[in-house]
Amino acid sequence: MISYNPKDWIRFIFDLHRSDTLVRLLPLLTGTGLYAAGIVWCLQHWVADPANSPLRQLSVLHGLLGFAISILVVFRTNTAYDRWWEGRRQWGALVNNSRNFAIKLNAMLPGDDDRNRTFFKQLLPRFAHELMIHLQSEETRYSLDEQPHPEIPDFDRRKHVPNQVASLLASRLAALHRQGTLSDTQLLLLNGELSSLLDICGACERIKNTPIPYSYSAFIKKFIFFYVLSLPVGYGLGLQYWIVPVTLFVLYVLASLELIAEEIEDPFGKDTNDLPMGRLVDTIRRNVQETLA
Amino acid sequence: MISYNPKDWIRFIFDLHRSDTLVRLLPLLTGTGLYAAGIVWCLQHWVADPANSPLRQLSVLHGLLGFAISILVVFRTNTAYDRWWEGRRQWGALVNNSRNFAIKLNAMLPGDDDRNRTFFKQLLPRFAHELMIHLQSEETRYSLDEQPHPEIPDFDRRKHVPNQVASLLASRLAALHRQGTLSDTQLLLLNGELSSLLDICGACERIKNTPIPYSYSAFIKKFIFFYVLSLPVGYGLGLQYWIVPVTLFVLYVLASLELIAEEIEDPFGKDTNDLPMGRLVDTIRRNVQETLA
Amino acid sequence: MISYNPKDWIRFIFDLHRSDTLVRLLPLLTGTGLYAAGIVWCLQHWVADPANSPLRQLSVLHGLLGFAISILVVFRTNTAYDRWWEGRRQWGALVNNSRNFAIKLNAMLPGDDDRNRTFFKQLLPRFAHELMIHLQSEETRYSLDEQPHPEIPDFDRRKHVPNQVASLLASRLAALHRQGTLSDTQLLLLNGELSSLLDICGACERIKNTPIPYSYSAFIKKFIFFYVLSLPVGYGLGLQYWIVPVTLFVLYVLASLELIAEEIEDPFGKDTNDLPMGRLVDTIRRNVQETLA
Amino acid sequence: MISYNPKDWIRFIFDLHRSDTLVRLLPLLTGTGLYAAGIVWCLQHWVADPANSPLRQLSVLHGLLGFAISILVVFRTNTAYDRWWEGRRQWGALVNNSRNFAIKLNAMLPGDDDRNRTFFKQLLPRFAHELMIHLQSEETRYSLDEQPHPEIPDFDRRKHVPNQVASLLASRLAALHRQGTLSDTQLLLLNGELSSLLDICGACERIKNTPIPYSYSAFIKKFIFFYVLSLPVGYGLGLQYWIVPVTLFVLYVLASLELIAEEIEDPFGKDTNDLPMGRLVDTIRRNVQETLA
Amino acid sequence: MISYNPKDWIRFIFDLHRSDTLVRLLPLLTGTGLYAAGIVWCLQHWVADPANSPLRQLSVLHGLLGFAISILVVFRTNTAYDRWWEGRRQWGALVNNSRNFAIKLNAMLPGDDDRNRTFFKQLLPRFAHELMIHLQSEETRYSLDEQPHPEIPDFDRRKHVPNQVASLLASRLAALHRQGTLSDTQLLLLNGELSSLLDICGACERIKNTPIPYSYSAFIKKFIFFYVLSLPVGYGLGLQYWIVPVTLFVLYVLASLELIAEEIEDPFGKDTNDLPMGRLVDTIRRNVQETLA
Repeated sequence: MISYNPKDWIRFIFDLHRSDTLVRLLPLLTGTGLYAAGIVWCLQHWVADPANSPLRQLSVLHGLLGFAISILVVFRTNTAYDRWWEGRRQWGALVNNSRNFAIKLNAMLPGDDDRNRTFFKQLLPRFAHELMIHLQSEETRYSLDEQPHPEIPDFDRRKHVPNQVASLLASRLAALHRQGTLSDTQLLLLNGELSSLLDICGACERIKNTPIPYSYSAFIKKFIFFYVLSLPVGYGLGLQYWIVPVTLFVLYVLASLELIAEEIEDPFGKDTNDLPMGRLVDTIRRNVQETLA
Repeated sequence: MISYNPKDWIRFIFDLHRSDTLVRLLPLLTGTGLYAAGIVWCLQHWVADPANSPLRQLSVLHGLLGFAISILVVFRTNTAYDRWWEGRRQWGALVNNSRNFAIKLNAMLPGDDDRNRTFFKQLLPRFAHELMIHLQSEETRYSLDEQPHPEIPDFDRRKHVPNQVASLLASRLAALHRQGTLSDTQLLLLNGELSSLLDICGACERIKNTPIPYSYSAFIKKFIFFYVLSLPVGYGLGLQYWIVPVTLFVLYVLASLELIAEEIEDPFGKDTNDLPMGRLVDTIRRNVQETLA
Repeated sequence: MISYNPKDWIRFIFDLHRSDTLVRLLPLLTGTGLYAAGIVWCLQHWVADPANSPLRQLSVLHGLLGFAISILVVFRTNTAYDRWWEGRRQWGALVNNSRNFAIKLNAMLPGDDDRNRTFFKQLLPRFAHELMIHLQSEETRYSLDEQPHPEIPDFDRRKHVPNQVASLLASRLAALHRQGTLSDTQLLLLNGELSSLLDICGACERIKNTPIPYSYSAFIKKFIFFYVLSLPVGYGLGLQYWIVPVTLFVLYVLASLELIAEEIEDPFGKDTNDLPMGRLVDTIRRNVQETLA
Repeated sequence: MISYNPKDWIRFIFDLHRSDTLVRLLPLLTGTGLYAAGIVWCLQHWVADPANSPLRQLSVLHGLLGFAISILVVFRTNTAYDRWWEGRRQWGALVNNSRNFAIKLNAMLPGDDDRNRTFFKQLLPRFAHELMIHLQSEETRYSLDEQPHPEIPDFDRRKHVPNQVASLLASRLAALHRQGTLSDTQLLLLNGELSSLLDICGACERIKNTPIPYSYSAFIKKFIFFYVLSLPVGYGLGLQYWIVPVTLFVLYVLASLELIAEEIEDPFGKDTNDLPMGRLVDTIRRNVQETLA
Repeated sequence: MISYNPKDWIRFIFDLHRSDTLVRLLPLLTGTGLYAAGIVWCLQHWVADPANSPLRQLSVLHGLLGFAISILVVFRTNTAYDRWWEGRRQWGALVNNSRNFAIKLNAMLPGDDDRNRTFFKQLLPRFAHELMIHLQSEETRYSLDEQPHPEIPDFDRRKHVPNQVASLLASRLAALHRQGTLSDTQLLLLNGELSSLLDICGACERIKNTPIPYSYSAFIKKFIFFYVLSLPVGYGLGLQYWIVPVTLFVLYVLASLELIAEEIEDPFGKDTNDLPMGRLVDTIRRNVQETLA
């Protein structure tokens, strides 16, 4: 995710970031520009009576459908934003639950129970870390920046790792309960936070694995494509070569909205606009370790 | 559900999938094209003074209502998408709750209690499987890919099967509680996940059995029908035969949005855009079995 | 509620159901058609220089406000749909909670405790039934299709009946708890479902008793009225008598959306689009009786 | 709140209720009408070549911004409606929780414990009543329509009264728990309803005390103002004096939507459209007293 | 936050508050005005045949995209408002939970347990205060308006302070539980309020730290910029110098909406429209102290 000052308009308008839609659409815009110019050339040479050609009124199509395509594409972008924001909310909930888990364990475990404190101090942030790796489909192992804990095994990477971490947490709490370190009530108190871990994991998987329905997505792209390609036909007689920048601007706007939607509807990658999962994992680690120190 | 790469525009635009709305609308489009051409022919032959005919201004109707029909149809599609997404959320919650159920049971049951572990290992994914069959209204029996468990009966397929599975789960937990295997607190800890099963089932049934109100759905179809059929009358004098592609494109856009809405508002069938329930059931089975291994 | 196949377009378009908005608007449409024709007649006879009359430009009004009225009316219909869908969600929750209540009681009560089983088997579906009667403001008594239970009294119909049913349920559970049949934990486990009953009842009452604010509803109707009545004045000079079908179509669209909104914003009546409460009550009764059998 | 039959269109259209926006906007409409007529007079007398004046094209401004102002104002009204509906939901929750509180207490308290029953019978509805007074910022004391209860003090009206009522309820429950009348579990069962009281109170205070941000509200008003005042300038040359009714109708629509938004965004006053809190308090009192009778 | 009377239109329209968008946009508006005038001058002097120039039809671009930009910017503002309102809801929840925490502690702690009462009386409002400081990223220490409590340490300002406050609260409750002052059940009863504190803190951090995605925000600004700058080119030939006020008004509307969105999407600063956190902290302090008095 790019951190930015939303009030710095100059930078927004003139800075062409590598991931800016203007840059990414450049090939498409170039091709469409040539196409539009070609259509105008054809119209100028091949249409017999340009002043009275019914082609001049073809633009009615774009007027009628201009509403539909605008509202469709803006809704599309907003739906994608809702998914992005839900992803962010889930990771925010992970931060909250990790903190609450930690302050409750801190209050419950005896102050000198180093073994358990270290165990949870390592395992709680580990869940967030493994979830990040899981969502980014990476194969890298957990880079141990601290001494490995004897009771935290190497997880089986062919299976579902966050599940294993959560299961180890649950088993540990049950063991502490059996030993009498945690009472019945204390187990109940920790239940909400424990269950939330896999709820968050599942919600992120849902967002990642379920793009908007195929036929919806295909329809929007087909609609934009035909709409833009028919623009020079409808307006070429009137606007002459001025239709080229008009077509490009309309294409730029519609395709940008669709591109942005595609980019933000899966917020768990490593693109410019994706969620700062790494930073959130660090926050969780720091907060949990401060609390359980 | 079709898995696809949302960034592969070429494929979206040119690949005519069997379920693509363009393919499904072909007969309707052909008929409407002939109708539009017929109207133009009539206008050209039968209207006395075409240049000053008040018919030329009939297009005002389409301008006034163009916005209403656009926003109505886009809202319709978004409402359908919300239902589709809620269906997906419910199945996501089923994954989450099955996982949490499994890791809690794994922590609670003694490690060598094979009988109970196998019982839950089979019954938990069974709920998801039976819910899928229930939602697809299939009569097929559960294909046993594993040895039947002596304590899991054949469910009565004339009654509500997911209900029976959940009831068997609840009874088993109560029996384990009576035997002292599960404590009071442990029963409480499992309550959320247990209740969630039938909540999810009911929510899916609600989405499946309650389409949008009849008069709303009928009105949208009537509106599209009259709007499109009056297009050639309003624009035929001006656009001549160019009104044919215009009418077809407008019809394609409006009818596609309605078709997509119809298809995704019931996400539990076996259509191209329906939810991948089979895959989710497999995920649940694999995760539960890994956890309770 | 009408069950229908959403893909059967022919039926939607040509079948004029008794409750179809086209049928219900017929008198209004007839009157407005006569009015529009009268206005055109007046314009043709009384306007001096029709070609240059400033009246020709009055249509600017409809262009400027066409957006506003379209979006307002579509939003209105969507708000009404949200209420309808919330009503459906509440009844779905009633199904879920009745089922969960039953499977928990089934697990808790001894298998041979016929007295309590019959009690709950009758009382649980009774709540749904009484809620339906309460929402439809009917005076009819509960038609006993089964032998009356000695411990279920005739409820006092001058008071709030669902309240009495829920109170009887709560008292019974408390009595079972005092007798030792239900433990502390079991009472806790049933608490969510018990509380949900009156929550659902209250939510349905809220939807039923609170239409959208009066001034909002009045404003929309006034806006539609003046907008449609000024159409023939603004377009009559240009469109001549063609303004009559245009006015009628615009009125049909706007008034239909308002009519549909009015109909679905209270989903608890006996109209065509109202919720199938009777069927849901049957589902609850059947499921509860299967479970507690 | 006005109770009304949403299907009585005649009344909606012709009945000018004292709070109707048409009535309230009368002075503004009169002034604007005179202003518009004045502008037309000036244009007719001072513009040299009216047929070719660039002023004729000024109307492009209203076309471009017509959609923005429409959607902005409709969204504004919908946001206000959401707040109104949330206020209604909160009061609905108060009804639900009071009922649940009562049926649980009724099940828990011995049937002959008149002292406690009367205490809660008076105190529970009192919360709703005090919340209403608190939200209407009234100074009036609670009108005792029943014999004062010796254990319910006069609350200190300089402090937060609903808080004191809830605190007294909590203390009473804790005292009953200490005496052994209520068990641990029963205290837990009542916790949800008890906490909900102040949650509802806080939510209502939030809606009441937080209008939409100042700069947003100011911007909408400025936008409407300049948009309407520039209408006669842009259209006066073409429409002549017909611009007066056009301007008035546009102003009526936009200002009405804003007025309605202002009125319903704070639903806790005593305006025509405000929530029927008094009736809801009565419902709570009647239901609680029936239950705890 | 500015407190205001939403019905005082005169003030809204004519009062130019320092933070009014009109004031803040003044330099931009001046520059754009000069630019637009320059374009008109160029068009008047350099275009050969102004009456038939295809440039006259360039305005089609603004018609086609006018809808897209309007809906995009209005959605943008609504998204920002949703964030602002969520921030307000979170602080409202903080008020509610602090009050509930206080009335429960008041009911649980013996009336003469001054030590614990003072402890919570100081620590509960402290959480709100520290959260405010944390969100405003201030370095100022807590201004002690009361005698410091021996058991409340100076928190380590290099670490996460709200976390430390919540942790101290949790530890204190656990200590009271170990001493027997609080029972198991009472600990459970306080769990919801305790967990909510860090949930609220995390939600506020999420809103503060996650603006809308960079490419979305950059696109909107680029779109407004190019749209407004091309206005004089498209309309200059027709409108002459009247295009200057038109361009300025369009720019004022679009840029104001974007400015308002930027301002309210982070509701935790000290801007005019930001949330009145200071007042809410005072409310919490006053209510908690009244309750625990």
